[in-house]
Amino acid sequence: MKSSDHEESLDPLDWAPTRALAHRIIDDAVTHLSTLRERPVWQQMPEAVRASFKAPLPLGPTPLDQVYEEMRRNLLPYAMGNVHPRFWGWYMGASNFTGALGDFLAAIDGSNLGGGDTAAAATDRQVVAWLRDMMDFPATASGTLTSGGSMANMVGLMVARNTMAGVDVRAEGITALPQALCFYTSDQAHTAHQKALEVLGLGSKSLRLIPSDKAFRMDVAALTAAIAEDRAAGRKPACVIATAGTTNTGSIDDLPAIGALCQREGLWFHIDGCIGALVRIAPVNRTLVAGLERADSLALDPHKWMHTPFEAGCALVRDAKKHRNAFALHGEYLEEKPRGLAAGEFLADYSFELSRGFKALKIWMSLKEQGVEKFGRLIDQNIAQGAYLTRRIEVEPKLELMAPTAINIVCFRYRPAGADEAAIKALNTELMLRIQESGLALPTDTTVRGRYSLRVAFNHHRTVQADIDLFLAEVLRLGALLENSPKTP
Amino acid sequence: MKSSDHEESLDPLDWAPTRALAHRIIDDAVTHLSTLRERPVWQQMPEAVRASFKAPLPLGPTPLDQVYEEMRRNLLPYAMGNVHPRFWGWYMGASNFTGALGDFLAAIDGSNLGGGDTAAAATDRQVVAWLRDMMDFPATASGTLTSGGSMANMVGLMVARNTMAGVDVRAEGITALPQALCFYTSDQAHTAHQKALEVLGLGSKSLRLIPSDKAFRMDVAALTAAIAEDRAAGRKPACVIATAGTTNTGSIDDLPAIGALCQREGLWFHIDGCIGALVRIAPVNRTLVAGLERADSLALDPHKWMHTPFEAGCALVRDAKKHRNAFALHGEYLEEKPRGLAAGEFLADYSFELSRGFKALKIWMSLKEQGVEKFGRLIDQNIAQGAYLTRRIEVEPKLELMAPTAINIVCFRYRPAGADEAAIKALNTELMLRIQESGLALPTDTTVRGRYSLRVAFNHHRTVQADIDLFLAEVLRLGALLENSPKTP
Ligand SMILES: Cc1ncc(COP(=O)(O)O)c(C=O)c1O
Ligand SMILES: Cc1ncc(COP(=O)(O)O)c(C=O)c1O
Repeated sequence: MKSSDHEESLDPLDWAPTRALAHRIIDDAVTHLSTLRERPVWQQMPEAVRASFKAPLPLGPTPLDQVYEEMRRNLLPYAMGNVHPRFWGWYMGASNFTGALGDFLAAIDGSNLGGGDTAAAATDRQVVAWLRDMMDFPATASGTLTSGGSMANMVGLMVARNTMAGVDVRAEGITALPQALCFYTSDQAHTAHQKALEVLGLGSKSLRLIPSDKAFRMDVAALTAAIAEDRAAGRKPACVIATAGTTNTGSIDDLPAIGALCQREGLWFHIDGCIGALVRIAPVNRTLVAGLERADSLALDPHKWMHTPFEAGCALVRDAKKHRNAFALHGEYLEEKPRGLAAGEFLADYSFELSRGFKALKIWMSLKEQGVEKFGRLIDQNIAQGAYLTRRIEVEPKLELMAPTAINIVCFRYRPAGADEAAIKALNTELMLRIQESGLALPTDTTVRGRYSLRVAFNHHRTVQADIDLFLAEVLRLGALLENSPKTP
Repeated sequence: MKSSDHEESLDPLDWAPTRALAHRIIDDAVTHLSTLRERPVWQQMPEAVRASFKAPLPLGPTPLDQVYEEMRRNLLPYAMGNVHPRFWGWYMGASNFTGALGDFLAAIDGSNLGGGDTAAAATDRQVVAWLRDMMDFPATASGTLTSGGSMANMVGLMVARNTMAGVDVRAEGITALPQALCFYTSDQAHTAHQKALEVLGLGSKSLRLIPSDKAFRMDVAALTAAIAEDRAAGRKPACVIATAGTTNTGSIDDLPAIGALCQREGLWFHIDGCIGALVRIAPVNRTLVAGLERADSLALDPHKWMHTPFEAGCALVRDAKKHRNAFALHGEYLEEKPRGLAAGEFLADYSFELSRGFKALKIWMSLKEQGVEKFGRLIDQNIAQGAYLTRRIEVEPKLELMAPTAINIVCFRYRPAGADEAAIKALNTELMLRIQESGLALPTDTTVRGRYSLRVAFNHHRTVQADIDLFLAEVLRLGALLENSPKTP
């Protein structure tokens, strides 16, 4: 091998220029976040920028400050825009500076949280305990941080599958099930559940979509009937997936009623709280999610309403033993030891991953810095913004509310005089795209009971009421423009 | 709702102190990384520190600099230690400063990479294309960044399952399979595959563990026989999982032979290259993984030999259509659009997650800064270190090599005179724990063909030959001490 003085590393030979660049990156980041309103929410990449991402694999080195300059020029201006106060698309958090420092520090710490007696693992356990306490789950419950809501739900459904199987499904697989397992959720549920059941080998056929009522909540009578029907047909009802905050309209299923039904029927009670579980910490609105604490498993999503930078989801499981039994597996190279680094339980025993990053740190830092009460107030603030826009829409003759506003998601559309559904869809789609392209705000769209709808989700710590006024004025202006333009798009 | 001037956000009211703190964090991080050798690799947390991680949920705020001070005092000194040049435990990367900046910038950019026409998504595609080119996969292959090797393997096995099922397994589930699917891997394979098959509903029974030869490589004759046996019994051989770099000993399966067998037999050819795939870019050793490029799916792990901060894995799939068919699913709130933010294909269509973080940025920045050639040289450097330690062990009468060294993993133990297996295990375990507790280095252990073994994995860009000399001297010193101590532990 080469002698020591020829050994290379990824560290710079001289730290000074790297350090100077890092300081510049900090200053630029603060400037970026403190001047967000001066820039468009989102803008399309010019072709030259798009082409730059087709460049071939770099063989040799480039000074880091040049790499950063390219990032600053070609990358940052064409971000999704969810850091901007007027981004209300789909459903996601807005990130935050402390969280960014957390991710930096996690990489400096470097720990792998799959296993090992480290302060990083202790922090992870503490953050899971805090989230558990925020959800009023018992101290005996277990939990795991995940990459997001999809995986948090998959953790819950995996434990449900294994617990309800009636056989050792880890060894034997799905074919050994004495009866087909049935899962239930509402027609408003997120596709993450279908995807999870596909992954878990149960197939989308195992998922019954129960109709929702006028308030877009699962119809509990229909759910009861579906369970009875499956039992009568020799299938095994296994799990109800209730949603606390649906993606389309923010509706919250009747958690106490569904919880009681699951208990009566001996079913696993899973709650998808990716959107709404955190309402639990909001002083004004917390009762909206009463019954949450009774779930057997609960998915929540700090990278949504806690604005943790991606990625951070969390699954909680009431029965820690069932949770661990679904996941624990140790190779001979991974034995736990009485002392040393490998002492103590491995975090990997509670999820799909083995190597795991230090996602907990950004949550830990933010919760300590802001306090949970502030996160609660910010959630109330967003719900109040949803109510505000709803009231404004209700008094605008040209606007139509498409669903009752349950929390922070508002579905509505512009209604041109005498237009049919197709024309309404065309006009509103064009309206949405023009607003997106203008950079003023970022609404997205959906289909509510078969009808096209614009949709905004106030899931942003930076949004203020004036942002909503600005947006509404533009919707009305553009709506009128499109309605009166000779050739409608 | 509150009037605007009462609206709160997570941003500081005054950025100046936050900015000043961030500058301090940068300086501390540089100091931390440039003085690693002055500190122990790993040390146990004192009880008071451990207790600090039991503190209850913080209700109110704490100034961020206090939060950081606690992090610096209680957290950073008790990290896993994998950033330290003498950490050779298990198998993981060592992180790097540019990667940490990348994670910071990813959180400032904020983009959700699940979908959307953003520069972040373009960067992700570029990084996947670069990794694909590094592996000599065709330009038509697809890929996805994952949280790590476990999920990268699970992506590959999911596509294999769905492709080989012979039915629409996404809809119908495993029970609809006309024949039981059989997967094959060696007795040296990582447990990630068993776990993946458990998740995927096939059960661990579907995995056949094929014996390995003297070089710890899958016995291809035994594999051929097992396939024939399963066919004869009416089961359906579906997929062979070859390993390029096993966890125990670093052995590399005979990829050309297994690839040819899969082609002949019509089986899916998956390669777990979490450890060894990147040898492909190492100028001296690249031929060790010839045949890699013929896989139907390949898992590799940038957070190992590229030292990307956790988390970053990657799955490549030769047939992009099969890859997408296994995962694509869109809710009504997630339609792709001709223009605007939702234009273009969604990255979520290639993996389990919907919301996705910007893992690509840290890889992009590092590959540009260092160039792929440097990463290749660093891999050769680690392999040379493995060979160096092996040669040193071979000439030490008190040390016993437990497996041939294939790449950068060395299995060996101290052999006290006339001791039986139990005594050897006891002595070597104690030796390992003492070295861990001393903070000098971090070896771990394993069991090789039923015999206890110490194990070091040179997967570190900062390790130099002198580190190995230091470690070996200590092993010999401690071994003699323990051998001659009146009561062996
Ligand atoms: C109700 C609900 N469940 C699950 C998810 C999936 O969460 P993630 O995108 O974090 O995977 C979402 C995403 O918006 C959601 O709205
Ligand atoms: C051969 C092999 N495959 C898969 C894995 C799992 O990778 P990860 O820990 O990134 O999930 C490992 C981890 O060390 C490994 O060594």
